[in-house]
Amino acid sequence: MFALDPAFEAVSAPLADLQLCAARLMDDARWPWIVLIPRRASIVEIEDLSSADRQRLMREIVQAGAAVRAVGAVSGSAVEKLNVGLIGNVTPQLHAHVVGRRAGDPAWPRPVWGFGAARRYAAEALETAREAALAALA
Amino acid sequence: MFALDPAFEAVSAPLADLQLCAARLMDDARWPWIVLIPRRASIVEIEDLSSADRQRLMREIVQAGAAVRAVGAVSGSAVEKLNVGLIGNVTPQLHAHVVGRRAGDPAWPRPVWGFGAARRYAAEALETAREAALAALA
Repeated sequence: MFALDPAFEAVSAPLADLQLCAARLMDDARWPWIVLIPRRASIVEIEDLSSADRQRLMREIVQAGAAVRAVGAVSGSAVEKLNVGLIGNVTPQLHAHVVGRRAGDPAWPRPVWGFGAARRYAAEALETAREAALAALA
Repeated sequence: MFALDPAFEAVSAPLADLQLCAARLMDDARWPWIVLIPRRASIVEIEDLSSADRQRLMREIVQAGAAVRAVGAVSGSAVEKLNVGLIGNVTPQLHAHVVGRRAGDPAWPRPVWGFGAARRYAAEALETAREAALAALA
């Protein structure tokens, strides 16, 4: 049975259950950033997914990219480049990061993973970002 | 028309043209590492690919994962975790990194991108690694 690793709950807010993945907004106002966790038990690598689920994951990564752009638009930091990463060295449950980047953002041009400390959204800004993401995912 | 960004030629050795991507072995003996570059003109984001090409890219990422495991096996550093990244902040031509990781490798558990300087393979070790990758990709 699928159970979300609590590590995700600590750093992100729920958005929606897509066909395959739980989509969550990372609570880090430095970047518009969605994490997708396939709702399947005991999956660590992409190769562990069925062929159909791999295709769903690819579709949902593209959907999350559109949602990340929407979050960027409402938070005044238009996305110039999408970064996608499936790493999992620390939290092995398979997950895909979809991050909106812009020249001059705090880590640019380096990857965001492991870069400094998260800057939490203010409550109202988090709600605005969630609503923009949800509208784009619908 | 597709043309490989010269930045890839400087840091990697050709392996094979897959259905969609040029597959290349990164010339960095610290990690078994393949880069996949879709052989399509003017593609920067996954969303720029056709739906069929996105599915091909997903399949080839899984193929590259098997090849990275094969390279790890012949170079004495069995892969424990695959890392996949599509970043492109420096070299925008769309490309996917597929990297074999193991606990205790030089950057573990951090991502490899931007970590230190490449350690080039010796000529013979590069050939052994290429042959292992090619056998797995065939």
